[in-house]
Amino acid sequence: MSKLLLGKPVADAMTEDLSLRVDALKAAGVTPVLAIVRVGERPDDLSYERGVTKRAQSVGVDVRPFVLDEDAGQEQLEAVIRQVNEDSSIHGCLMFRPLPAHLDEDAACALLAPEKDVDAISPAALAGVFADRQGAFAPSTAVACMKVLDHYGIDPAGKKVAVIGRSLVIGKPVAMLLLARNATVTICHSRTRDLAETVREAEIVICATGRARAYGADFFREGQTVVDVGINVDAEGKLCGDVDFESVENLVDAITPVPRGVGSVTSAVTVGHTVQAAERALV
Amino acid sequence: MSKLLLGKPVADAMTEDLSLRVDALKAAGVTPVLAIVRVGERPDDLSYERGVTKRAQSVGVDVRPFVLDEDAGQEQLEAVIRQVNEDSSIHGCLMFRPLPAHLDEDAACALLAPEKDVDAISPAALAGVFADRQGAFAPSTAVACMKVLDHYGIDPAGKKVAVIGRSLVIGKPVAMLLLARNATVTICHSRTRDLAETVREAEIVICATGRARAYGADFFREGQTVVDVGINVDAEGKLCGDVDFESVENLVDAITPVPRGVGSVTSAVTVGHTVQAAERALV
Repeated sequence: MSKLLLGKPVADAMTEDLSLRVDALKAAGVTPVLAIVRVGERPDDLSYERGVTKRAQSVGVDVRPFVLDEDAGQEQLEAVIRQVNEDSSIHGCLMFRPLPAHLDEDAACALLAPEKDVDAISPAALAGVFADRQGAFAPSTAVACMKVLDHYGIDPAGKKVAVIGRSLVIGKPVAMLLLARNATVTICHSRTRDLAETVREAEIVICATGRARAYGADFFREGQTVVDVGINVDAEGKLCGDVDFESVENLVDAITPVPRGVGSVTSAVTVGHTVQAAERALV
Repeated sequence: MSKLLLGKPVADAMTEDLSLRVDALKAAGVTPVLAIVRVGERPDDLSYERGVTKRAQSVGVDVRPFVLDEDAGQEQLEAVIRQVNEDSSIHGCLMFRPLPAHLDEDAACALLAPEKDVDAISPAALAGVFADRQGAFAPSTAVACMKVLDHYGIDPAGKKVAVIGRSLVIGKPVAMLLLARNATVTICHSRTRDLAETVREAEIVICATGRARAYGADFFREGQTVVDVGINVDAEGKLCGDVDFESVENLVDAITPVPRGVGSVTSAVTVGHTVQAAERALV
């Protein structure tokens, strides 16, 4: 039986630390505020909004939603982002993506003030992640993977790590975070030949392709740590990861389940970045 | 005997194409101009300046040097960059780095207009490389590696590539360019365990650590293509690469020599980016 790397203990430890830091901020007269910019009513967005709101409230961070109709125009959206940028009582901002196709997502992302960009959607934040610049926020899911490894004492330094997936939201940034921690990182993807063999060679595997139960026993071996970032819905409507958990759970050393794995940590990271932004604004 | 991947034929082919494009620009009343910002008189900078100036002149691109004393202040440097940004007759800008330690290099790089940033020193350009955004200029040396592979018909798609080195000037950006071309990229570095073994598994190897003759026969095997980005001076004052060329040249399938390899292509890439920037400004 593999060790289950549950997200809750990770998020709980973070929450405890964040509560203390929010208390200190409030004592200094500052309540951290996270703005959420949402266009339309996508179920995924609403679900994550509920999660992050609950997490924020549990540590004393206020959430301020800015909700636009699904057919809102670019000007409306940009006006909201400007309002967020200019309001000094707002410390962090999470904008749900993908935006509806009629909107210019790149332009909207580039508009967000880097110091409030707690999910690293702006070019400045992405450049910071790429350059390993101190202080840049990285995408919350990528940071959540690192928090899970750290919490369970799995040091990536010197280890072979395979990242499956090369998205800008998770695959590439988590590769950069792992590289900054001295892992030897191989970035794999749909065009990788001998994918199973390459993944089997790694000591830590990050699965981030959003393909339900795509990676089974032939991709893994004893001794590995597997971090499954996928959150997929299978044919029967059940949540599942990118890894075929049932065929792997007795094979590898440690694995994050889905649900109850990385996803439980992501909202704590977003809230944590907001607290950090508020602390920086205070200095 | 390995096939020698010489830089000159690559640069010559690029130069031929660039000459035609500059002719077209001149017919439309535009002479492409590359600004060079140099602080002090470092021999490396002067040597590259001579090379890029010669290359630029050979295709009809003008070079405008902006030279500051070694002890110039941040304000002076930023005034020069602003002047470059505002001058619509300047299309590209190359600023030599590292800057003297008393200057804030990050701030200076961030100031350069992205559309003139032909060597990708600004956060906007780096984010473009990281995000694989069309139209972003990547660092010239990283692009030069791709030009060499392309010229000699070596397609990285689906191949295992090892990049040794994780600098922002070459290792990380070339990894992103290779990834965008569907290579499976492993980024190796000083903390990589079993480096020789990892490198031997790759089909294409990019050496970019700046360690003279550090990689010998035990790192390589038959069937590999080796791109040596290092330009080092050995104990006897001779130029050499990161690869111990003599012990490898009969082992691998193909290798870029040093000198006469990638370095010969880099200046053509910088000039090429300048021409591209001028073409874009014309539209």
